[in-house]
Amino acid sequence: MRMKEIKYSFTDDYSEGCHQSILELLVATNKVQQLGYSHDEYSERARGLIREQMKSESADIHFVSGGTQANLIVVSAMLRPHEAVIAASTGHVFSNEAGAIESVGHKVISVDTDNGKLNAMLIKETLRGFDHAPHVVKPRMVYISNTTELGSVYSAKELRELYAFCMHNSLLLFIDGARLGSALSIGEVDISMADMANYCDVFYIGGTKNGALLGEAIVINNDELKLDFKYHLKQKGALLSKGRTIGIQFLGLFTDNLFYDLAIHANQMARKISDALQRVGVEFFVEPISNQVFPILTDEQILALGANYNFHIWRKMDNGNSAFRIICSWATPEVVVDEFIVDVLAVI
Amino acid sequence: MRMKEIKYSFTDDYSEGCHQSILELLVATNKVQQLGYSHDEYSERARGLIREQMKSESADIHFVSGGTQANLIVVSAMLRPHEAVIAASTGHVFSNEAGAIESVGHKVISVDTDNGKLNAMLIKETLRGFDHAPHVVKPRMVYISNTTELGSVYSAKELRELYAFCMHNSLLLFIDGARLGSALSIGEVDISMADMANYCDVFYIGGTKNGALLGEAIVINNDELKLDFKYHLKQKGALLSKGRTIGIQFLGLFTDNLFYDLAIHANQMARKISDALQRVGVEFFVEPISNQVFPILTDEQILALGANYNFHIWRKMDNGNSAFRIICSWATPEVVVDEFIVDVLAVI
Amino acid sequence: MRMKEIKYSFTDDYSEGCHQSILELLVATNKVQQLGYSHDEYSERARGLIREQMKSESADIHFVSGGTQANLIVVSAMLRPHEAVIAASTGHVFSNEAGAIESVGHKVISVDTDNGKLNAMLIKETLRGFDHAPHVVKPRMVYISNTTELGSVYSAKELRELYAFCMHNSLLLFIDGARLGSALSIGEVDISMADMANYCDVFYIGGTKNGALLGEAIVINNDELKLDFKYHLKQKGALLSKGRTIGIQFLGLFTDNLFYDLAIHANQMARKISDALQRVGVEFFVEPISNQVFPILTDEQILALGANYNFHIWRKMDNGNSAFRIICSWATPEVVVDEFIVDVLAVI
Amino acid sequence: MRMKEIKYSFTDDYSEGCHQSILELLVATNKVQQLGYSHDEYSERARGLIREQMKSESADIHFVSGGTQANLIVVSAMLRPHEAVIAASTGHVFSNEAGAIESVGHKVISVDTDNGKLNAMLIKETLRGFDHAPHVVKPRMVYISNTTELGSVYSAKELRELYAFCMHNSLLLFIDGARLGSALSIGEVDISMADMANYCDVFYIGGTKNGALLGEAIVINNDELKLDFKYHLKQKGALLSKGRTIGIQFLGLFTDNLFYDLAIHANQMARKISDALQRVGVEFFVEPISNQVFPILTDEQILALGANYNFHIWRKMDNGNSAFRIICSWATPEVVVDEFIVDVLAVI
Repeated sequence: MRMKEIKYSFTDDYSEGCHQSILELLVATNKVQQLGYSHDEYSERARGLIREQMKSESADIHFVSGGTQANLIVVSAMLRPHEAVIAASTGHVFSNEAGAIESVGHKVISVDTDNGKLNAMLIKETLRGFDHAPHVVKPRMVYISNTTELGSVYSAKELRELYAFCMHNSLLLFIDGARLGSALSIGEVDISMADMANYCDVFYIGGTKNGALLGEAIVINNDELKLDFKYHLKQKGALLSKGRTIGIQFLGLFTDNLFYDLAIHANQMARKISDALQRVGVEFFVEPISNQVFPILTDEQILALGANYNFHIWRKMDNGNSAFRIICSWATPEVVVDEFIVDVLAVI
Repeated sequence: MRMKEIKYSFTDDYSEGCHQSILELLVATNKVQQLGYSHDEYSERARGLIREQMKSESADIHFVSGGTQANLIVVSAMLRPHEAVIAASTGHVFSNEAGAIESVGHKVISVDTDNGKLNAMLIKETLRGFDHAPHVVKPRMVYISNTTELGSVYSAKELRELYAFCMHNSLLLFIDGARLGSALSIGEVDISMADMANYCDVFYIGGTKNGALLGEAIVINNDELKLDFKYHLKQKGALLSKGRTIGIQFLGLFTDNLFYDLAIHANQMARKISDALQRVGVEFFVEPISNQVFPILTDEQILALGANYNFHIWRKMDNGNSAFRIICSWATPEVVVDEFIVDVLAVI
Repeated sequence: MRMKEIKYSFTDDYSEGCHQSILELLVATNKVQQLGYSHDEYSERARGLIREQMKSESADIHFVSGGTQANLIVVSAMLRPHEAVIAASTGHVFSNEAGAIESVGHKVISVDTDNGKLNAMLIKETLRGFDHAPHVVKPRMVYISNTTELGSVYSAKELRELYAFCMHNSLLLFIDGARLGSALSIGEVDISMADMANYCDVFYIGGTKNGALLGEAIVINNDELKLDFKYHLKQKGALLSKGRTIGIQFLGLFTDNLFYDLAIHANQMARKISDALQRVGVEFFVEPISNQVFPILTDEQILALGANYNFHIWRKMDNGNSAFRIICSWATPEVVVDEFIVDVLAVI
Repeated sequence: MRMKEIKYSFTDDYSEGCHQSILELLVATNKVQQLGYSHDEYSERARGLIREQMKSESADIHFVSGGTQANLIVVSAMLRPHEAVIAASTGHVFSNEAGAIESVGHKVISVDTDNGKLNAMLIKETLRGFDHAPHVVKPRMVYISNTTELGSVYSAKELRELYAFCMHNSLLLFIDGARLGSALSIGEVDISMADMANYCDVFYIGGTKNGALLGEAIVINNDELKLDFKYHLKQKGALLSKGRTIGIQFLGLFTDNLFYDLAIHANQMARKISDALQRVGVEFFVEPISNQVFPILTDEQILALGANYNFHIWRKMDNGNSAFRIICSWATPEVVVDEFIVDVLAVI
């Protein structure tokens, strides 16, 4: 493996700017005067396109600039002070948001999982620890990510079952879709945007990690949760005066299937890597299926790869091995992927 | 006055996209991989350029996406739970943020003013109402906007005096600079970016209202307030993974004086209007000096103008008059301004 | 006026311990084992007695240890994050609780009044300033005190009208009854505990200022607000493990009309003073009617009285006069009142 | 075992009122006028007595009405928004306060332990998960209880070592002393009130569970944490206007060693039970040492005991056994203890 001049980064899916079509939309619309606070026509059209994809006329859609922001606003708007969120211990709201949920007053109850995914059984066991009212918080929302922080994915069937359990137990289901594009674009997993209209109370569609300059679209299915939501956006500092900036991102993403095309590319690049590595016997921390893969190599092998590539060391294992995280994105060139595979094969 | 096909909007200074140079920067940098969370080189260079303007090596600079967000994070990071903010009753944090400051736990003590500006005397009187510890909140921060929500402006001398008063009374001074560009670009008012390094503890530089797609730059002068600030950005959902998006805005704004050029244009357009109207005896709700002017006309005259222009009715007065708000921006074409003046003269 | 050895304090109505009957109840029940967290039989019986007085079987009743605690819990439990409280600017929640309401995330919108009382017209005017959703908070609760912080009182008729207005405008009505005993015990004012069941959503009955060692009883009339209330008590630190301690206070107060007898005494003592002073032409800051009176004398006269009595200077007036506050309580001896009147007459 | 008419409750240590001496103090002081808000002379004397016991002139002492209240105020006053508390997963703040700490904005990081006790090694491991600033909260306070929720105890030596570790790692140490009396009154454990002045930043002394009608005394050792503390008491609804009510409890407890005498009795009664059970081979969930003991019996045996005694089932074990919790208090009669032992021996 020869040293390259510039390291390619597989660290995340937000290392580049945005897809060319979005840039072009920004340029094309730049001088048109529009109303502020997401009343602009681009935001309106983007909302229409998303509702079409969802086959839902009634979903409320709000654009915000980031995922932690989306999470804290949804929780703050929907829970009363004594109510809590249940999340996997790998869930972004539990482990990676500097206390954002607690900052708006709510406990996050963590549940250990094998692969980042919750299910009815795990939640049922968790609920048993909270029957001692009013001395404990009242679990009221289940938070999952799709795909998860470990790259695993929920199918439509799994969501349907989880949502049925939630409704039966007076729990709201909130799906963090920072990487929803990836989840909806895996060949062998049956789930579509229309399923998202039916199997949760609220979710958000990630733009930042799927080709936008910034932006996430919060989608509210449950009618009872829609009232006054925009106040919460404003109160938490999420209502941009130039809302058009985010609206244009989603207008671009939901025109001509761009959103899915970008996610398919990211998934395929990751799959090419995981397939190649599996063929030579490399094991993975979690079964690779989406745009995030977690191969396990020896620390020496990882160190060698680190000379030419940036990535995140995920977990030191025993016996001198570690799992590292490779993320492919809409922008990952196939030629780099091919080189990377060659380089991995060279070090193992 | 003939009806025009498209109404021109003087409603605000965020009706268009961004200045052409910023668009070009976005295009030019789009494919380069960068670190996330504002560690990218564009953000770094933008911070350097701002520090240069401030003649301050030590200022801490953080980019966020909007003004309410900047305000709530600064207050939350800097005050303890029992401490309160003093603001003019027209101040954005008191009147226009859906309870953002209270949402992070702090009372905003409002002070009535003539023109949106606070001064030592007004604050001194206000403090008298808070000597009954611990039954009242403890005033700890003075919040002002420059320019204010009424278009008035603080000079360097006024800030120096106000800051001296604040320091003497253990009060932090925080300046909301959503329209700081305008304040620094009024010919007859002596104040510069370097003054901002000396006469307050913390301030922010508005990008959204001065030619950026989005973004405000929080600047912390006071060393004691710098510790751990980035945690607060993250916790409140303001730390964008693609921080480059905002960094590029400020890189554009602070290259070749663009920030000032845009503000000068906005101020000049507004001045052209106010000069023309003053010449024919029109009165103003607040003395016009920056890019916001508040002429007073009869309701009939305003209605007539409303056929061709959008603007905000600010205040119903007695006797059939109202004050309305005309905002000029970096994007306001001079030809439109000229037409508007003609149209106003036609209706009065 | 001769100097006395010990100054008598008219500063407040919580300078002594509790009424003898309550002490006796404490002694009589001391060794009996009881359940914790207000499940004890004394609390249960006290709740029954209060419901009887209210002629309401369905009111939910919760005991807490103080008024600020009652206020912050009611507001926190009943409002969503973007909703705000409307209160008189003299209202305890606005002016005298160290930001307790803001600390749980809500703005208090203040309304200036003549005598501490709100009415439909004042609230209507206030609401006009909050039609700019979602940039402003959403007014959702009206907070009043009865008697008010200025000693004025709402009659049943006034409450009925105010509540009708509130319901018509989707506003909750919350009555702070720290001095409710006094309000219900003024001969010429028609209002009873049963009226409290009908003309508000929630109120609290003050024990501390009417003869208890401590304790306030929060009463919830509105069924929708009852759900999960006990969680909020626990979360805010108000659910005493020895709930019996407060239950016994209210058991004592609501046995044999003690609650009213104590309030009548306090009112009568205050009336004796105000009648005597009015007879010699003394004016009052607010018309005296309950157990708080605010006579206006010259600063010299007040200084002279201060040699023998403690009281609170309420407001410096112009021309060398001040209003001072005299509070009589369940414990104020008539002989002291008589001496005080003599002493006032001696100095004026 | 014959059925008794009245079940004796070993459920908790707050089933009765208060010790006779405190009742007598309440009676003796009842009619004396005192200043409000803990400025009364009883509170002042109680503070003096506690400082004497601590051999510390400089400790700040504040009385509040309950333990959850003490915990949430200390955390709220001492942490900035991004800072978090580390606690055992059995710790009251993590598991038993309905989200009180999260309600004031802070995450509680839980640590699994064998017996409810934290130590430097456990905390060190925990800190490793929080090195990814600013994406995670910043651990800033260690919370422990002494005795713990499982009845275990920290000696002076253990506290000294823990505090040294905390100081070295910029962590505040807060000790919840709801059952501090018990911890300081175990013959074989070397720890005194004076140690509490030296080995933590802040702690509280439990009155409610050691013979008072109500009340906990927050003690602040660390000078930097003292500033403005009373504001927080007021803001959180903890500053009683009749502060004397709690002051008198502590005046009683700290006169003539009552505080220790009551705790010694509680410990001795519990020891008598655990000794008797250990002699016949009963095992315990946690080694019995203080006034809480957790014997393990078969479910049938426990059911039989339940006919005559109330207690809390702590944990279902495998194989038809459960641990149950027996709490003895200052008020537990030795004769009842003796009967209970006979009854246990009869069922096993």
